[in-house]
Amino acid sequence: MTSPESITLRQPLDMHLHLRDGDMLRLVAPLSAASLAGAVIMPNLVPPLTSVEMLSAYRERILAAAGPYAADFQPLMTLFFQDYPESLLAAAKPHLFAIKLYPHGVTTNSESGIHSIDTAEPTLKRMEEMGIPLLVHGETTGFVLDREAEFLSIYERIATRFPKLRIVMEHITTAAAVQLLDRFENLHATVTAHHLVITLDDVAGGLLQPHLFCKPIAKRPEDRDALLAAALAAHPKLMLGSDSAPHPRHAKECCGCAAGVFTAPLLLPRMAELFEAHDALENLEAFTGGNAIRIHGLTPPDRSVTLIRAPWTVPDSYQDDSGLSVIPWEAGRTLPWQIAD
Amino acid sequence: MTSPESITLRQPLDMHLHLRDGDMLRLVAPLSAASLAGAVIMPNLVPPLTSVEMLSAYRERILAAAGPYAADFQPLMTLFFQDYPESLLAAAKPHLFAIKLYPHGVTTNSESGIHSIDTAEPTLKRMEEMGIPLLVHGETTGFVLDREAEFLSIYERIATRFPKLRIVMEHITTAAAVQLLDRFENLHATVTAHHLVITLDDVAGGLLQPHLFCKPIAKRPEDRDALLAAALAAHPKLMLGSDSAPHPRHAKECCGCAAGVFTAPLLLPRMAELFEAHDALENLEAFTGGNAIRIHGLTPPDRSVTLIRAPWTVPDSYQDDSGLSVIPWEAGRTLPWQIAD
Repeated sequence: MTSPESITLRQPLDMHLHLRDGDMLRLVAPLSAASLAGAVIMPNLVPPLTSVEMLSAYRERILAAAGPYAADFQPLMTLFFQDYPESLLAAAKPHLFAIKLYPHGVTTNSESGIHSIDTAEPTLKRMEEMGIPLLVHGETTGFVLDREAEFLSIYERIATRFPKLRIVMEHITTAAAVQLLDRFENLHATVTAHHLVITLDDVAGGLLQPHLFCKPIAKRPEDRDALLAAALAAHPKLMLGSDSAPHPRHAKECCGCAAGVFTAPLLLPRMAELFEAHDALENLEAFTGGNAIRIHGLTPPDRSVTLIRAPWTVPDSYQDDSGLSVIPWEAGRTLPWQIAD
Repeated sequence: MTSPESITLRQPLDMHLHLRDGDMLRLVAPLSAASLAGAVIMPNLVPPLTSVEMLSAYRERILAAAGPYAADFQPLMTLFFQDYPESLLAAAKPHLFAIKLYPHGVTTNSESGIHSIDTAEPTLKRMEEMGIPLLVHGETTGFVLDREAEFLSIYERIATRFPKLRIVMEHITTAAAVQLLDRFENLHATVTAHHLVITLDDVAGGLLQPHLFCKPIAKRPEDRDALLAAALAAHPKLMLGSDSAPHPRHAKECCGCAAGVFTAPLLLPRMAELFEAHDALENLEAFTGGNAIRIHGLTPPDRSVTLIRAPWTVPDSYQDDSGLSVIPWEAGRTLPWQIAD
C-alpha cells in the first residue's frame, strides 16, 4: 500500500470512554470531542448514574465541557446496571445507548456493582425485550491474570439465555475472548488502543510503570497479538473503545496507584500509526467507528476527521488552573500523525 | 503444637542480602546485623565487586556500618561473576563465600552481567575444582512471567556439566523451580520471605503496589503455595535468603519504580509468624540457618537470637539525617513476634 499524506475517517467513535466529572470532565472532554463524532460514556461516577435525571444532567455537563466541539460530538449515554423496573427503562430508553454492568469491586468506582448474575436476570430479560444493549466489565475477583478468562463462562451463559440481547464484552485483553466472539452471534467486544500495543512486560518487566497499569491488566504477548490481529483485520464484531481513564497525577504516582491509562489525546493518531505499521490502513475506519455504527445502528453526527502526516509530540501532561494534572499514554513520544486543524 | 512465649534460633542466617553502600549501607546494615549470625552479601554495587581488594574493603565498610553488632555478624562475601583467572580465584578464596552470576540486564545493577553461559564455562570449571559455590540470578530477558521458567534449562545444563559445582538458584518464585531441586544433587535454592506470602495479585490485583514490586516478580498462587510448602517442611535444599533490597523512597514512588522489597527489619519475626500460622515452628531454625550451615559447611558466630511473643509494629519508614528514607515491607502492620533485646 502507498503511504498517504492524510487519512480521513468518517464518523470516528470511541466506544468506551471515561470522562469523570467536575474539573476533570472540563479538562478531558474537549480532548475527545475535538476529534470524534461520538463516544460511549461510562456511568461509574460517584454516585453511579442510575436515573434518567442523572443521565440527562451528566449529558448536559459533558456537552458544556465539550464547548465548541459539542455540536459535532454525540455522547452515547449509559446507565449503571442495577435491578431496573420496566417503567424506568421505558422512560430512559430515548436518552440511553446501553446499560453497563460491573461485577462488584472489580474496578474504579464499582462498589455498587452486582454480586451475582442470577439476580440480574429479570433486568437482562427486560433489556432483551426492549432492545437495550448490555455492556459488561467482564472480570471476576479471582487471581489478577485469570479474571477475564474466568468470566468467559458468564458471557456464554448470558449470551445463551438471552439470545436477542446485544452484549458487548468491554476492553477484552485475552486471546480466549477474541475466540469467544465467533461462537455467539449476539456477542461483540471493544478493545482499547493500549491493549493492542502493551503486554504485562511493559507494565512490570523493567521498572514498574504506573501509567500503564489498568484493569483488566495487560496480559501475555500471545494475547496482545490475538487482539492486534483481530483489530487490524477489522474483525466485524470488534470496536475501538479506548477505556481512556484519567486519574490525577498524584493518584497514579503514590503508594497504591489507581488503575487506568489516559489515551484520549492520542487515540486516533496512535491507531493510524499502528495500522500503517501493519499495512492495514484500509481497515482503520471500520475499527474506529464503522463496525460500531453497523453493529448498533448508530446515527452519529456526519463528521469526518482528517489526520495528516506531520510529527506530533504527546504532551507531558494536561493540566488546568486548579492544579489538576493528568499524564497521557506515551507522554513525550512523537507520533507521525496528527489531527488536522 | 503448643504456643510458645519465645523462640530461640541458633545462628540465623540471611542467605541473600543487599546492603548497598554509603548512607544506605549505614542505614540498613544494623537492621540485619542486629539479629543474624551472618548474611550472604550481594556484589551488585556500582561498579560491581570484581577484585579481592574491593571485596575486603566492602567487608570492612559493612562491619563498620554494623557497629556494635559487628562482632557477632559474619558477612559472607561474594564476587560478581566474570571470567576470572585461577590466580585471582586462589587469592580471593580465603575472603570469599561464593560467586554470584547475573545474566546481563535482568535486575538492578546487572549491566555487567554475562551474555552467554558458554563463555562462563572456563570459570565455572575452575570454581568447581576449587570448591567455590555459584549463586545465580536465574532469569532470562523474556516475558516477565516466563523468565525464571525459561532459565531452568540453563540450571539443568550447568548442574549436569559441573556435577561437583555447588549451585544455588537464588530467590526462586515458581513451583517448577521447587521441583527442579530434587532432580540434581548439586542444585540448591534460596527463597525470600515475601515470595512465601505474596502473589502477583498483591502487586497489581488491586491498586498497584510499588513496594511489593521486585525481580523476579511474584507469580501465581500455586507457585507461592509450592514455595511455602517447601519452606514450611524445611526442604533440606532450601534456605531463607531475604533478597531484602532497599531503595530510596523516591525511587519506589515515581514513574518507573525500582524493583526490590526491603524486608530486613522484620525478617525473623515475620517468618516466625508465618511458620506458627502453619504449625511448623519446629522447622523454622532449619529454614532460617540450619540448612545453609549444613549445605555450605558454614561456621558463623555462635549466636542465638530470641524472639518473644509481644506485638511489634513495623515502622512506616527507616530514615537518616541526610533525608534518606526507605519503606519496609508491611510498614505499619503489627506482628505478634519481636526480637528480644
